[in-house]
Amino acid sequence: MKPAIVLLSGGLDSTTCLAIARREDYDCHCLSVDYGQRHRAELTAAAQIAAALGAREHRIVKLDLAQFGGSALTDQSIAVPTDGAVSGIPVTYVPARNTILLSLALAWAEVLASRDIFVGVNAVDYSGYPDCRPEYIAAFEAMANLATKAAVEGAKLRLHAPLISLSKAEILRRGIALGIDYAMTVSCYQASDDGHACGVCDACRLRREGFSAAQIIDPTRYR
Amino acid sequence: MKPAIVLLSGGLDSTTCLAIARREDYDCHCLSVDYGQRHRAELTAAAQIAAALGAREHRIVKLDLAQFGGSALTDQSIAVPTDGAVSGIPVTYVPARNTILLSLALAWAEVLASRDIFVGVNAVDYSGYPDCRPEYIAAFEAMANLATKAAVEGAKLRLHAPLISLSKAEILRRGIALGIDYAMTVSCYQASDDGHACGVCDACRLRREGFSAAQIIDPTRYR
Repeated sequence: MKPAIVLLSGGLDSTTCLAIARREDYDCHCLSVDYGQRHRAELTAAAQIAAALGAREHRIVKLDLAQFGGSALTDQSIAVPTDGAVSGIPVTYVPARNTILLSLALAWAEVLASRDIFVGVNAVDYSGYPDCRPEYIAAFEAMANLATKAAVEGAKLRLHAPLISLSKAEILRRGIALGIDYAMTVSCYQASDDGHACGVCDACRLRREGFSAAQIIDPTRYR
Repeated sequence: MKPAIVLLSGGLDSTTCLAIARREDYDCHCLSVDYGQRHRAELTAAAQIAAALGAREHRIVKLDLAQFGGSALTDQSIAVPTDGAVSGIPVTYVPARNTILLSLALAWAEVLASRDIFVGVNAVDYSGYPDCRPEYIAAFEAMANLATKAAVEGAKLRLHAPLISLSKAEILRRGIALGIDYAMTVSCYQASDDGHACGVCDACRLRREGFSAAQIIDPTRYR
């Protein structure tokens, strides 16, 4: 089995991404980052999901992005929007988050001699974050292949984003077919510590609409 | 004055880079990372240098890269080489270090509405690290300009690497002309806690040869 790093937030998308990597027979090393997010319940969920889906290991790296601020997800003084669609990139955007997460994955991949990183970004039913787009993923992969000793020595890195062009409903159908119990996952930006969802933030809205469109019973625990 | 993020390790190159950014009239926000490096004296040096060179502020972000391992700089069980030139990339290479440092700089830049990041990488008298080469810097800049809300909204980011094609002697001459007291800087990979250098590791060797080639008295405190 080839080793892979899987970025695992504990949400719906990254869980499906892990299931896909497992289905492709990768030995999965899951990485979560405790970056000061208000929805810390996702970290607990990630640990349970990694175990349930047969990952080799799960690590939580501590990195305080709240010290930079600039996001409703790390700054308690900025409210999480609950009014539905807005134009432009919402305040829940965390500056350079995926770049930081992928950089950490890149470091770990090199140490484990892994050539594969999985990330559950999605550019269809998503919040409009710039670092979820295909052109961004391609640019990161190109950069990564110039960045490391492994790449210079010929071990080309591949950045897998298997969900990037799927709708939320398609992601859910794929995950159900792979046997995922989505009750384990936490998407809500302001989930309570025991994982109950608000039901009204962007993440909840996209998730709810996905279950509805896929005609799958929504197992989310709303408060 | 325009705000800039300056990656500041506390060594010779990043200090010169900061002096250049200050000379170009940037309001400098310096970033160091406490990543578990054995030469922690560089962090103390960085704080002194930031103050001496008139930076606006200096932040040390804590991120434990030692938990990934894979480098003599973070793993005490791997010795720092002291035998001079070797072929290939040495064991002091830290997997994906510059990518991680630049990602953090990118996050902070976005929050401060800065379009400029300075990094003191050098591809002439250097240790052969892949993430110090011009093609890597160009690829990171291209990725960064797809990664952020700021870039998507038109604020193009520029990654400045003013030392990249200079020899160590040229860097030193430039820095002396800018008034740097290099006694403040710590380059040694195994510097003592009070900043005394071993004189025999790659970083010391490159530094020593630079002073010699530039015909500048070496103010390094060797032990």
